[in-house]
Amino acid sequence: MSYDRPRRFKTNVNKNTSSTHWIYGFHTVLAALKNPKRKIKRLVTSKNFSLPPIEKIEKKQILAENLSNTELKALLPEGSVHQGIACLVDTLRTPTLECFCENFSDIKNACVIILDQVTDPQNIGAVIRSAAFFGAQAVIVKDRNTPPITGVIAKAASGGLEKTLLIRSTNISRAINLLKQKGFWCIGFDSGAKTNFESLKISQPTGIVLGAEGYGLRKLVRQSCDQLVKIQGNGELKDLNISNAAAVALYEIKKGIANLSNE
Amino acid sequence: MSYDRPRRFKTNVNKNTSSTHWIYGFHTVLAALKNPKRKIKRLVTSKNFSLPPIEKIEKKQILAENLSNTELKALLPEGSVHQGIACLVDTLRTPTLECFCENFSDIKNACVIILDQVTDPQNIGAVIRSAAFFGAQAVIVKDRNTPPITGVIAKAASGGLEKTLLIRSTNISRAINLLKQKGFWCIGFDSGAKTNFESLKISQPTGIVLGAEGYGLRKLVRQSCDQLVKIQGNGELKDLNISNAAAVALYEIKKGIANLSNE
Repeated sequence: MSYDRPRRFKTNVNKNTSSTHWIYGFHTVLAALKNPKRKIKRLVTSKNFSLPPIEKIEKKQILAENLSNTELKALLPEGSVHQGIACLVDTLRTPTLECFCENFSDIKNACVIILDQVTDPQNIGAVIRSAAFFGAQAVIVKDRNTPPITGVIAKAASGGLEKTLLIRSTNISRAINLLKQKGFWCIGFDSGAKTNFESLKISQPTGIVLGAEGYGLRKLVRQSCDQLVKIQGNGELKDLNISNAAAVALYEIKKGIANLSNE
Repeated sequence: MSYDRPRRFKTNVNKNTSSTHWIYGFHTVLAALKNPKRKIKRLVTSKNFSLPPIEKIEKKQILAENLSNTELKALLPEGSVHQGIACLVDTLRTPTLECFCENFSDIKNACVIILDQVTDPQNIGAVIRSAAFFGAQAVIVKDRNTPPITGVIAKAASGGLEKTLLIRSTNISRAINLLKQKGFWCIGFDSGAKTNFESLKISQPTGIVLGAEGYGLRKLVRQSCDQLVKIQGNGELKDLNISNAAAVALYEIKKGIANLSNE
């Protein structure tokens, strides 16, 4: 699962990509500063914050503004855990799913996550972080129900937004069908499924389909999947948190792909 | 990993267990209402909330108070996602680690999580939820650095607090040494470790030791572990979120134990 995001998207850049927003937190801002594709409008730090060496700053492409804690806090939404650093950025340009598929689907070990109606920004951010850790190429979300990218998602993703594409799709079932046409095996996670996830053998590009907490996958989304599986727990709680389920799925799929490569 | 929490703790109930606090959210409150050990002082719901059948309510051991949304909101900390239901509870009594070890350590497939200086209540709650899902018996935290149990931890645990013990210990290294004496194999998770976690064969009670985000395990804690391992990602981010790392560890250990049972 380890290859670069495409350097250039030829067509169909999504509309939801032109706004600016604040991101904050050490790892989040540092990853943004190191991403050549990220447009940074302002960089602010608290007075005692010591910036590590970063090319954009050393070349004076960006100037850091030193602010008091009160001034820094005033720029950000209430309760933001900024750790002394924040920056105002343009939302990253992301491709459409069609454009993504053109770039990726022929690569054997591609892996994407599809979130069906997951609305909690903490969870979306945490899924993006795990995707970036395990080397999945994209997290696909439903455009209408997914909150816009803000500091909360970016902070929970802890730099993952700079490494993994967040693709907005108008229709999740259609997105799954498109991925299937391109050779992705789409696995829906459903606590009521009969097949245990751990019994699967992964041998092709994979789509991990996860539903909203409490609701699970919608009927049409469930029907669109190639296979439904459950993560088997031995405990008394029925469901894992969505980002933890994503991490377990990514871990096992990455392992399966590594084993395949060694065969 | 599937057996009951001890029905009675003979000795050494921790001091930090006498306060009351509000918990909220559908799954969290329902699990508390179903837990015979949970003392409930007040149960409040919003006016349109429809309670499922619960013995304690049917037997009129608890009366639900119907409140307006504004009244309900006023009882809880700002921003609490209450989903129309909340209750005021006594903090659950938990055993000391010594008492826990007397009850559990002779059981082959016991599994505990040890958190070294993890302070974020969301992460602590999410770890408790995964522990309860996979059937781990306890989450052990450092007493002094860990926030008291509040609605935030309980909500993130989504009912897990009623199923898995949260044990407060004064010293994490000493806790690890005690667990080792009782037969637990203590595995420290460290992104700099040479051994891949997935290469391990689990064959005895296991302690999963996880450090605080950004800092990792402290030196003495690291040295106390039987073994250091890393979760191998193929992506560009170096670290998983702590609760996601816990979920991956629990998943693999549960699978290892299941495979052992089948041998």
